[in-house]
Amino acid sequence: MRTIEWREGTVITIDQNRLPHETVLLEIKTCREMAEAIREMKLRGAPLIGVAAAYGLALTAYHSRARTREELISELEADAEMLRKTRPTAVNLFWAIERVLERARSTYGDVEAVAKAVIEEANRMADEDVEANRAIGRHGAALVKDGDTILTHCNAGALATVDYGTALSVVRFAKEEGKNIRVIATETRPKLQGARLTVYELMRDNIPVTLITDNMVGYVMAQGLVDLVVVGADRIVRDAVINKIGTYSIAVLAKEHGIPFYVAAPTSTLDLEKTAKDVVIEERSPDEVTTIAGVRIAPEGVRVLNPAFDITPMRYVTAIITDRGVFPPDKIEV
Amino acid sequence: MRTIEWREGTVITIDQNRLPHETVLLEIKTCREMAEAIREMKLRGAPLIGVAAAYGLALTAYHSRARTREELISELEADAEMLRKTRPTAVNLFWAIERVLERARSTYGDVEAVAKAVIEEANRMADEDVEANRAIGRHGAALVKDGDTILTHCNAGALATVDYGTALSVVRFAKEEGKNIRVIATETRPKLQGARLTVYELMRDNIPVTLITDNMVGYVMAQGLVDLVVVGADRIVRDAVINKIGTYSIAVLAKEHGIPFYVAAPTSTLDLEKTAKDVVIEERSPDEVTTIAGVRIAPEGVRVLNPAFDITPMRYVTAIITDRGVFPPDKIEV
Repeated sequence: MRTIEWREGTVITIDQNRLPHETVLLEIKTCREMAEAIREMKLRGAPLIGVAAAYGLALTAYHSRARTREELISELEADAEMLRKTRPTAVNLFWAIERVLERARSTYGDVEAVAKAVIEEANRMADEDVEANRAIGRHGAALVKDGDTILTHCNAGALATVDYGTALSVVRFAKEEGKNIRVIATETRPKLQGARLTVYELMRDNIPVTLITDNMVGYVMAQGLVDLVVVGADRIVRDAVINKIGTYSIAVLAKEHGIPFYVAAPTSTLDLEKTAKDVVIEERSPDEVTTIAGVRIAPEGVRVLNPAFDITPMRYVTAIITDRGVFPPDKIEV
Repeated sequence: MRTIEWREGTVITIDQNRLPHETVLLEIKTCREMAEAIREMKLRGAPLIGVAAAYGLALTAYHSRARTREELISELEADAEMLRKTRPTAVNLFWAIERVLERARSTYGDVEAVAKAVIEEANRMADEDVEANRAIGRHGAALVKDGDTILTHCNAGALATVDYGTALSVVRFAKEEGKNIRVIATETRPKLQGARLTVYELMRDNIPVTLITDNMVGYVMAQGLVDLVVVGADRIVRDAVINKIGTYSIAVLAKEHGIPFYVAAPTSTLDLEKTAKDVVIEERSPDEVTTIAGVRIAPEGVRVLNPAFDITPMRYVTAIITDRGVFPPDKIEV
């Protein structure tokens, strides 16, 4: 099954906050429910958030009682605004919303024609994501040698996309090519996407995976246990990669140990007209840090930082793997 | 109250696994109970483990029914062997055991005289630890400027020692000198000593502290939020500092950002005749990584690494702060 699917007016996805213990399917019927699911990270991962936002607008279109084309477009615009406020950092969200709105605005004909076009566009974007991820996997697998151990951070897997994943698509294609590979997954505090989601995905695929805490990265690199790093991205700007908090520390450590550091992302994650200073780093609730699985781990009232992402300047990046190929960080083809 | 106290045949300490939620005092009456408490990390921190081991032998001496000096010494030697097996990395444990045994062996007279000498030696070591930590604080505080933010890792505080702490003694003396300082504490997975113990100690002392996850270190440094790093040590060998897992990653990041990286430790932590290759890095139970506060966070059966310590080569260390002064890493005076 894909991570997100359209079934005639309902979007089916999996509640990622409850993995790996419970497999709870969500049936999302309105754009407001979709916005809520994105905000609460029931679904997360830049490519998946993009497609989910498109499907949110498809839900609006499908269930709309608008009588005119203009009325529907203004409903879509209002819901687009709601979606834009869910999470500020991943560019795929804004890209997907713009693309669906553009499709609606450029579709002439009656309200049904516009609704149909919006749904079609969302489904097309889901299909394109799968294709892009397969292409990323093919291009990236060429960088992986037989016997390599790949360190990855957070979850840039099937669960972060419609299918295959970005960084984990590279892993999957390397394995498919018959290479004997291993993965080291960082647990990725505060929300533990590595421990919960990446380990889960790789164990299901019978790919050998070892879990470490985030602060073991320097140790495993110094011990010679890592051959290359592959991570995803939430936004790639001209001078930096914005990705899950902790990515930057790993990139610095990789450089210090002479280990290649690759970023895998679809073209929809590129935002090359901007630079790092244009990007808002989302600050999430302190509870994510002070509480784990409902259990409080720090004294009440403590001051907490909880940036969801960090900024890795391009000088730490060996290459960017996109659906178009593998590019040096200063020569990315869009 | 000191973290550990001798009360006529009973050792009183606090169960650190239950902090900050519950303040549970332990009354330890035998060396076997002490060994168990050390192994389970109810008490932890290199200087505290040393004093605790000495008190373990003091319990043996106090409660012994040995009739001869030789019989008591052989009981002490057997219990010393049990203590040595609790945790392999911190050198203070071995140093303290040797010192107590040496005192017993060099005390002539009857069995009471030896028992009294052992107890006296343990109490003296506790007093010396407090004095050493005060000296570390005084020497280290000179490195802290008014307005500085100090990043620290794990807990090198009063709870890791008999009183004051090592890294946190530097913080406490800087504050006592009237400097306006702040601390950033890493939570320190897997056992969360930063979130649970360092935050607790500093909040009690009204020292402003901000909690971050371990993978935010690069981010806060890149944002210019850290002026210096001060950490403790479990063993300082000629070419490296062995300390809580994550220390090495922080040291690399500090160097990359031009931030001074200081290690604070008493002379009893020095083991300068050895080098990093002589040190056994303790590998602890995978459950510490896969379970937090009793809640499982990763799929069953996942492979896990859980080294308790890592190795920071001296080239990353700006200076070592001991009770004798502040030394460049290649010129430590013992």
